[in-house]
Amino acid sequence: MPIHRATAFAPASVGNVGVGFDVLGHAFAALGDRVRASRSRPPGVRIADIQGAAQPLPRETERNTAGMAVQSLWQQLRPDFGVELSIDKGIPRGSGLGGSAASAVAAVVAANELLEAPLAREALLPHAVAGESVASGSPHADNAAPSLLGGLVLVVGPRVCRIPVPAGIRCVLVHPRMALETRAARRILAPAVPLPAFVRQSANLAGVVAGCWAGDLGLIRTALEDVVIEPQRAPLIPGFAAVKAAALAAGAIGCSISGAGPAVFAWCEEGTTAEVLDAMRAAFGHAGLDSDGWTAAIDGDGARIEDRE
Amino acid sequence: MPIHRATAFAPASVGNVGVGFDVLGHAFAALGDRVRASRSRPPGVRIADIQGAAQPLPRETERNTAGMAVQSLWQQLRPDFGVELSIDKGIPRGSGLGGSAASAVAAVVAANELLEAPLAREALLPHAVAGESVASGSPHADNAAPSLLGGLVLVVGPRVCRIPVPAGIRCVLVHPRMALETRAARRILAPAVPLPAFVRQSANLAGVVAGCWAGDLGLIRTALEDVVIEPQRAPLIPGFAAVKAAALAAGAIGCSISGAGPAVFAWCEEGTTAEVLDAMRAAFGHAGLDSDGWTAAIDGDGARIEDRE
Repeated sequence: MPIHRATAFAPASVGNVGVGFDVLGHAFAALGDRVRASRSRPPGVRIADIQGAAQPLPRETERNTAGMAVQSLWQQLRPDFGVELSIDKGIPRGSGLGGSAASAVAAVVAANELLEAPLAREALLPHAVAGESVASGSPHADNAAPSLLGGLVLVVGPRVCRIPVPAGIRCVLVHPRMALETRAARRILAPAVPLPAFVRQSANLAGVVAGCWAGDLGLIRTALEDVVIEPQRAPLIPGFAAVKAAALAAGAIGCSISGAGPAVFAWCEEGTTAEVLDAMRAAFGHAGLDSDGWTAAIDGDGARIEDRE
Repeated sequence: MPIHRATAFAPASVGNVGVGFDVLGHAFAALGDRVRASRSRPPGVRIADIQGAAQPLPRETERNTAGMAVQSLWQQLRPDFGVELSIDKGIPRGSGLGGSAASAVAAVVAANELLEAPLAREALLPHAVAGESVASGSPHADNAAPSLLGGLVLVVGPRVCRIPVPAGIRCVLVHPRMALETRAARRILAPAVPLPAFVRQSANLAGVVAGCWAGDLGLIRTALEDVVIEPQRAPLIPGFAAVKAAALAAGAIGCSISGAGPAVFAWCEEGTTAEVLDAMRAAFGHAGLDSDGWTAAIDGDGARIEDRE
C-alpha cells in the first residue's frame, strides 16, 4: 500500500557552535518545524499551507526552502506523482536556530516517506542543503546535517562525522526577540581571516572536537572560543558581550552566537543550566530585550516521522 | 648523588601535518638530535660542542635553540650550577623535519635530568618552544610538543592534546637534498586567508582529528588536504606536485609538506609504505633532486634519556 501522507518533525540546530563556521552544528530538539507531505495527482512540488510563521514566508516553491529541498529530491528520483507540503513553523524566523534547515529537512524526510524506495537518511542531506541555501544564500550543511541526523556533526566536504558528546553537558539557548537575516549577517563578514586568527580558530575547532572525543571539559573550555566570526557579528546583537560574560560567570563551558544570531548558546555542565539560562536572559533584559530560553541535549535526536497514513 | 651528565635523544617531527599550520605535529623517530648536558661550576648555559651539522650552527647561547631552551629553564628554576651542552645533530638543517625543535627538546630533557627536582615532561614544553623560536622566528609548538611527548599532538593555546592514531598507518618522509630556511618559508605566506579557504581548512583539520579518533581512514583521506599553506609553499620545492601525485597514485592516504619544507611526508597504510617511498623519491629524481627517505610510526615515542652518570 503506498503511503499517502507523512508528517516529519525536524529539530532546531545550533550552527557554527562558535568555532566551526559553516562546518559544525548540533541538534537542539527543544523546538523544531513540522512538515506534512501529501501525494498529489499533478506532478511537481507545491506549498499548500504555512502555519506558525510570524511574518509571511514565500509560497512559491522556488523561493521556499522546504519546496526547493523536495524539488531537488524529486528531480533526482522523478516519481510519477506530485507532492503538496504543509509547513508548521515552530522555529522563529531570523533567530539563528536553523529554521530554514529544519523546514528543508522535515520536508525531505516527509516526502521521502511517500516514495516506494525511500532514500537512506544520509542521502537526503544534499537535498536539504539545496533547499536551505535558498534562505542563507550560501550552501552549507552545519544546520541541515544535525537537524537530519541528530547530535553534534562535523561537515568535511561531502562527508559528515558525528562527534560524541561528553556525558552531562547540555546546551542553553536564549533568543532575544529580534530577527537577523542570515544573508545580512553573512554580508558583514570580512572576505579574509588574518593568519594568526586562522591558526587560533583552526586549533579551537579541532580542540573542541578532540575535547569531545576525549571527554576533556577543560580542553573544550579552552577551545570553545570564536575569535573570527563572533567579533564581527557581536555588534549586531545588543548586549551580546554582557550575555556572554553572564553565561561564563554562571559557570558555562563556552558561549557564542548560534548560527548567524541573534540567538546565543552556551554549553553547560548539567547542574548549571538553570543558573546560566537565568543569567543570560537577565543580561538581555538589561540591554532592553525580552527573550525566550530553552535547554536541550547537544546529543539530541535528529528528524523523525511522526505520522503516516 | 647528583647526576653530572645526561644524554637525551629527541626525535624529528612532522610539523603542520598539512592541515594544522602551527598547531598539529607528530613525532618521526627514524632520525633525531642528541644533546649531552654536563654540570659546570660557573653558572649559566654554554654550548661546548656541536657535531653532525653540515653547515656551522651558532655557538652563542642566545642564538642557539638548545642554548636558549636551557637558558629559559635555568631562568625559571635558578639552580646553583651551570650547564654545558654538547649537541649532535642527526636532523638536516632547513629540512622541515623539526631539527631546531629536536635540539631544544633534547637539551631541556637532558638538562632537566641534572636538577634535584626535575620538572614533569609537559612542564618542559614552554622552554623547548622558547628555544625553538630562535630558529623559526615565531613561537609555535607543533614540532616541540610531539618531539617531547611523542605521537600526534594538537596544540590548543596553552594545552596539548595527544590524538590517537589508527592502527596500521605510518608516515613516509622524503627529504630532497636542498635546504629551506623556516623564516623565509614563513615570509612568503599571505597575511590573511580567504574566508572559503579558512572554512575548508578548519574542517579539514577537525576532520583529520575526528578521523583519527574514529579510526575512519576514508574521512582522513578526504580531510588530509592543505588548501591554505601548501599552495603557497609548493613553488619553493622543485617537483612537489609530481611527488605528491606519485604518493597518492601509489596509495598514500594524504601527502603534503613537512613543516616549512622541503621534506614531504605521506601518511600510508602499512602495506603501501615501500611503494609510496619509491614513487616519491623517483619523482624528486625526475625533478633533478637526490633525496633521502625514511618510514616511521606516526604514534612514535617522544624524547628519551639515553644515558646518565
